[in-house]
Amino acid sequence: MTYCVGLFLNEGLVLLSDTRTNAGVDNISVFAKQHLFQRDGDRSIVAMTAGNLAVSQAVINLVQEGLEHPDTGEIETIYSVHSMFAAASLVGAAVRQVYRSHGPTMKDQGVPFDVSVLLGGQLAGRTMRLFQVYAAGNFINATHDTPFLQVGEHKYGKPILDRAVTPDTPLLDGVKLALISMDSTLRSNLSVGLPLDLTVYPRDSLDLSRTWRITEDDEYFRDLRAGWSEALRAAYRELPAVPYSL
Amino acid sequence: MTYCVGLFLNEGLVLLSDTRTNAGVDNISVFAKQHLFQRDGDRSIVAMTAGNLAVSQAVINLVQEGLEHPDTGEIETIYSVHSMFAAASLVGAAVRQVYRSHGPTMKDQGVPFDVSVLLGGQLAGRTMRLFQVYAAGNFINATHDTPFLQVGEHKYGKPILDRAVTPDTPLLDGVKLALISMDSTLRSNLSVGLPLDLTVYPRDSLDLSRTWRITEDDEYFRDLRAGWSEALRAAYRELPAVPYSL
Repeated sequence: MTYCVGLFLNEGLVLLSDTRTNAGVDNISVFAKQHLFQRDGDRSIVAMTAGNLAVSQAVINLVQEGLEHPDTGEIETIYSVHSMFAAASLVGAAVRQVYRSHGPTMKDQGVPFDVSVLLGGQLAGRTMRLFQVYAAGNFINATHDTPFLQVGEHKYGKPILDRAVTPDTPLLDGVKLALISMDSTLRSNLSVGLPLDLTVYPRDSLDLSRTWRITEDDEYFRDLRAGWSEALRAAYRELPAVPYSL
Repeated sequence: MTYCVGLFLNEGLVLLSDTRTNAGVDNISVFAKQHLFQRDGDRSIVAMTAGNLAVSQAVINLVQEGLEHPDTGEIETIYSVHSMFAAASLVGAAVRQVYRSHGPTMKDQGVPFDVSVLLGGQLAGRTMRLFQVYAAGNFINATHDTPFLQVGEHKYGKPILDRAVTPDTPLLDGVKLALISMDSTLRSNLSVGLPLDLTVYPRDSLDLSRTWRITEDDEYFRDLRAGWSEALRAAYRELPAVPYSL
């Protein structure tokens, strides 16, 4: 399993992913699920993947190697597309190509064709976007009404996002909320694990240098986890007492 | 879908369930999922069910009508069993009987045989127990290490329980925590809905009179939901700022 979350804020993007992959609980590994495509002054694109690792790695390879555009016949890569919409279309096309080549055998062997991709970023002179690409290659994008997207094990970490993330959330508050959301997930699902990869993309910066890997030794994250647990316990205690008499 | 949660506390049991059933989002209904079996001074047993409604209703009917015990050949009902363990075994036997009669046709028609039951209570002179019965009729029970069990849509409401419920949690605090857990679920999954059924069973009371139905008009629950949202937002703001500079 995996948990990746992307916040689509007025100030920019917050992109956080774990690094655990597993084939059964007795076979876990560390694989980055966050892939950065940067060309200074031209484009800053980040893909975060969940699902079958062979499928998601194939997709990431294909968008870099390039795919033939169905209309123009030209080879397009993540570095040549002219918009984030085209980037999402390219990822979708890559997903369908992998489905055509691996899907039938995976189906025969009872392995679900399971992949989803969060794709965020911006091209020079264009608007910043955040997309979620599904296993069919189709996709949606985050809007002001729903300023976050999640892939993988999304349920445990959703309640805090539902309540606290708005488009106006400052970037560093967004980081804090994404880390809290990840903490709830780490705590409840063993197949999501440290270290974490974090990228913050300030809108219009065209710069992907703000990346951090958060390990078990990260003092801030350790304190945040303990502090959040304590804050939740304090918060429920401070709510009005239940009015039922026993 | 459904969400039922049971807390197994030193002071007693807290049992909370929603009432929404749905066959598609365009066909929702209110059905109680909490069933009380009370014989004063002798036994207090509560079953909460999740899964296919036809299956769970059949199970509840069977444990009241009675099933033949495989060893003794005698007819056992939820009112004749001699322990909570025997009650859980009876529910399990009922699940398997429904599986034998309905399972093959359901499988033919692609309908999953999906049922799970939380069964809590106490018999005179015996210990209080809380069981979770699976669709195979097998079961587990809550212990001091894991003093709560959930069936149905359990993920959204788990983080707060993980962090705040201990065996020492007082009964009324347990009610508050169960309601908070339910609130997170209601907020994120449309197929879980009000009204709620709540039963509090004080250990050794053999009394199931402490039951409440919580509707949309319930002022305390409405205030709790608003207060919890506000408390979460305040809690995250009060945590130390993220140390990364952008």
